[in-house]
Amino acid sequence: MSAYKHVDAADLAFLEGVAPGRVFSGADISADYDHDEMTEYGHFMPEAVVQAQSAQEICDVLRYCNEKKIAVTPRGAGTGLCGGCVAIHGGVVLSTERMKRVLEVDTRNMTATVEPGVLLMEFPKSLEGTGLFYPPDPGEKTATMGGNAMTNAGGMRAVRYGVTRDYVLGMEVALADGRLITLGGKTVKTSSGYSLIDLMIGSEGTLGFLTKLTVKLVPEPKVNLSLLMPFDDLQACIEAVPQVLACGCEPTAVEFMEREVIACAEKYLGKQFPDTSADAYLLVRLDGPSREALTPAMNTLTDLALSIGAKDVLLADTDERKESIWNARGAFLEAIKGSTPTMDECDVVVPRDHIAAFVRESVEIGKRAGVRVCSFGHAGDGNLHIYACRDELSEADWKRGVHQVMDELYAAARRMDGEVSGEHGIGHAKRAFLQESVGETQVELMRGIKAAFDPNGILNPGKVV
Amino acid sequence: MSAYKHVDAADLAFLEGVAPGRVFSGADISADYDHDEMTEYGHFMPEAVVQAQSAQEICDVLRYCNEKKIAVTPRGAGTGLCGGCVAIHGGVVLSTERMKRVLEVDTRNMTATVEPGVLLMEFPKSLEGTGLFYPPDPGEKTATMGGNAMTNAGGMRAVRYGVTRDYVLGMEVALADGRLITLGGKTVKTSSGYSLIDLMIGSEGTLGFLTKLTVKLVPEPKVNLSLLMPFDDLQACIEAVPQVLACGCEPTAVEFMEREVIACAEKYLGKQFPDTSADAYLLVRLDGPSREALTPAMNTLTDLALSIGAKDVLLADTDERKESIWNARGAFLEAIKGSTPTMDECDVVVPRDHIAAFVRESVEIGKRAGVRVCSFGHAGDGNLHIYACRDELSEADWKRGVHQVMDELYAAARRMDGEVSGEHGIGHAKRAFLQESVGETQVELMRGIKAAFDPNGILNPGKVV
Repeated sequence: MSAYKHVDAADLAFLEGVAPGRVFSGADISADYDHDEMTEYGHFMPEAVVQAQSAQEICDVLRYCNEKKIAVTPRGAGTGLCGGCVAIHGGVVLSTERMKRVLEVDTRNMTATVEPGVLLMEFPKSLEGTGLFYPPDPGEKTATMGGNAMTNAGGMRAVRYGVTRDYVLGMEVALADGRLITLGGKTVKTSSGYSLIDLMIGSEGTLGFLTKLTVKLVPEPKVNLSLLMPFDDLQACIEAVPQVLACGCEPTAVEFMEREVIACAEKYLGKQFPDTSADAYLLVRLDGPSREALTPAMNTLTDLALSIGAKDVLLADTDERKESIWNARGAFLEAIKGSTPTMDECDVVVPRDHIAAFVRESVEIGKRAGVRVCSFGHAGDGNLHIYACRDELSEADWKRGVHQVMDELYAAARRMDGEVSGEHGIGHAKRAFLQESVGETQVELMRGIKAAFDPNGILNPGKVV
Repeated sequence: MSAYKHVDAADLAFLEGVAPGRVFSGADISADYDHDEMTEYGHFMPEAVVQAQSAQEICDVLRYCNEKKIAVTPRGAGTGLCGGCVAIHGGVVLSTERMKRVLEVDTRNMTATVEPGVLLMEFPKSLEGTGLFYPPDPGEKTATMGGNAMTNAGGMRAVRYGVTRDYVLGMEVALADGRLITLGGKTVKTSSGYSLIDLMIGSEGTLGFLTKLTVKLVPEPKVNLSLLMPFDDLQACIEAVPQVLACGCEPTAVEFMEREVIACAEKYLGKQFPDTSADAYLLVRLDGPSREALTPAMNTLTDLALSIGAKDVLLADTDERKESIWNARGAFLEAIKGSTPTMDECDVVVPRDHIAAFVRESVEIGKRAGVRVCSFGHAGDGNLHIYACRDELSEADWKRGVHQVMDELYAAARRMDGEVSGEHGIGHAKRAFLQESVGETQVELMRGIKAAFDPNGILNPGKVV
C-alpha cells in the first residue's frame, strides 16, 4: 500500500516553482503538521508542506504528484479528531491555510462563496449587515469551512438547521490528476445525475481537493433564548428528548450535559455554571423573529418539561445568562482534554430513542475496563461524544483499557443501529470501526468509487477506506 | 451497448419460479408498461414484467439477470417525466407496484419505514393521529415513495422543508448482483464514509434497486394559510421573490403562475380561479403552530408585497379558498397536457435571481421557434417547469421547433449557471443535456461510479449516464 514515491530534491524544486516561498521540508516543517487535535492517534511528519494560494497551484501540485505517485494529504486548520489531515504515508501536506478569502456574499440568492481555508469563526464578519447567517455550528470555531464540508461537520444547531451537507450548494474541486471540476452552484435543488457533490461532502479529501465552496445562507433569526432544564438523573433527562422534539416547538439545539462534565468546564473556565442543583441538564435553544413569537413555544416547553420530571426550568434570555451556559457547553471538549494527560473519543450517532441506553451502557463499559468515561452530546440528533480518559493509568493499562472501551462502544452502537461517526468523520483512526459497521460489501463499493476518482490512490491515502 | 440477452422461455420459467403468477410476457404485458407520463419520448415494450412482492424476489431476479446479462428496468407507478422507468433496452421491467406496505411508523424517532411502492397519496393515512407528517410534496400524488427517492423529487413545500433527499434516512438496496445492503437507518446525521445513500438518491435505479425506505417525519404544523399576490406582469411578480425569501417569514411554498396557465386549469377543472385581475401571481404559503403565531409573518409579507408592486394581497385562510387556489395550482401539468396533443418539458433549476430572466427568455425562444411555450414553477427555489406545446403544428414543424426550443432552453440554463433538472431527473430523455451541462469529466466520473456498482450494466441501462 505504501508504494508512494518519496519527495526528493527535484520534487521540492518543482513544488517551489509552483508555490515560491511556501514550500517547507525537513527541519523547516513545523511540528504542528504532524498531528491533528487528537494526538492519541500518533505523530506523522510529512516530507513536504505546500501552503497553496490558488486552485491553479493545487491543480499543479496534484498533477505532478499524481504522475510521480507522491502521496498528497489535504489539510485545513488541523482541528480534526480522527487523523484525517495527517500524512500517515508521508509525501506532501497540501494546506489551504492561506486561502482565506470570502469571494462573494450574494444577498439576492442568499449564498456565499469562499476559499476553503476561511475559518468558521471569521466567516460571520463577512455577513454583518446582510441579515443573513450560516447555520452550521460545530464546537471547534477555528476549523476551516473547507474542512467542515469535507467531514460533513455537524454542530449544535443541527436539530433545527441540519448539518454542513445541507448548506453546501456548490464546490470547485481539483481531481487527483489536476483537472478542476465545478459541482452544483447557486441552485438550491437538483436531480441532475449522480450527486457528486454529496459524494464529495464527507469524503475527507480522498476523492478530490476542495478549492472553492458556495454555501447557502438563511435569514438570521432576530431573537434567541435558551431553557436549562435540571433533572435528577441523566436517564430522566434524555428520556425527555423525544417529547421535546415532537411538541412542535422547533428547537434549534437540544444538548445534554452531566454534572461531572460541567464541573470540568467550571474548573477549565474558572467560572461557575448558573445552576448546581442537578446531576443532569437538558439545554434547549429556541430561535425566532421576536420574543413574542417565541413565547408560545417557551410556555409549551416549560409545561412539558415540568410534567416529565424536570426539577425546574431556567430561562436564559439575557446575553450574560446565555453566555454563562453556552460558554460552559462550548468548553466541554477542551475541559475534558485538560483534565487528563491523554484521551480517546467516540463520536457515534444512534437513533434518538437509544441515546439514554447508549449513555448508560458507556458508563458500564468504562467501569468494566477500568477507564474513566464521560460524555456529552447532541441529544436532539442522537450524536454522542464519549471520552475515555487515561488519568493516572499506566501505559499498559491505558492501551488495554481504551482498546476495550472503544471496541465495546462501537459494538454497542452497531447493536443499537447506530453509525460510527455523527460528525467527526473516519480519518485513519476509525477505519476498522467503519468496516465493521457497514460491512465488506459497502467498503468494496467505497473502494470502487475511490478508484474511479483517484486511480493512483494519491489523495489522502489510508483514510476512510 | 445493447448487447443484452433477450428473455427466452427458460428465463420466463425462472422468473415464474421466483414470482409465481406475477410474471407477464408478450401480449400479456399491459401497454401501460411501455411508457411513462411523457409519451413524447417514445414507447418501449419490455420483454417481461415481474411484479415483485419482496426484497428476496428482487434479489433473486437481479442475481439471475446479472448472470445472464438481461437488462432490468426498475419501475414504480410510472409517473416519471423523463423515461426513467421505460425499458429502452428491452429485458425485464421489475415493478414495485405490489410492495405497498407501510412497515412501521416510529413516533419516538419520528421515522417511517415503507416498501418502495407506497403511493405518496396513500402514505398520510398511516400517519393520522401521530401529529407527524412527511413534507415532500411533488405535484404527482400517484407517484411511489420509492420513485420519489430515486429521482430526488421536490415539490411545492421544498422552499421551507427541502426535497426528498432531506427526508431519506435509510434504505435497503439490492445491488445488481443480488446482494442486499442497508444504508443509513434511523440516525439523523452521519459522517461515516462516502455517503452511499446520497449517491443512491436521485440515481434513478441505475446503481441499485430500492427495496425498503426509512424516511424522517416532522411535527405537523397545525395551521396554514396562503397569500395570493396579483402583479401586473410576470417580471414584477418574480422580482419580488428574493425579498419574500429574505424577510424572515420562512414561507413553506413560493409559486408563480401566469394568467394563461391559470386559464388552462380553469378550463380543465371547470372551476373559476378566485382572482382574475392580473397577468401574474405569486402564491405564498405559511405554516405554523397557530393563527396567532402566523400573524406577524402575514403582516410583514402583506406590507412587503404591496410596497414592491403587488396590486393586492388576497388571504386564503378558509379551506374553500385554499382549495380553490391550490387545486388550480395542482392541476397545471394535467391542464397543459389536456390543452395540446403532445408536449415536451424542461425542468431546469437556476439561481433564484435568474428566474425572471429565464422565463422571459423562454418566451422569446418559443416565439423564435414558432412553438407555444408556457411555464409555471417553484419560484422559491428557482425550479421552473417550461412546456413546449405542439398544438396545431405539423409533425415536421413540431419536431424541428421542439428540438430548437429544448436546445435553446438548456443552453440558456447553462449560461445562467443552472442545472438540467430540478426535480424530475434525467431518465433517457435528458442524457445529452446532462452531458452538455456537466461536461465530459463529470460524466466519466459518473460512469466510473456506475461501473463500481453495476459492472455488467444491467440496471436501468441507457439512463442517466
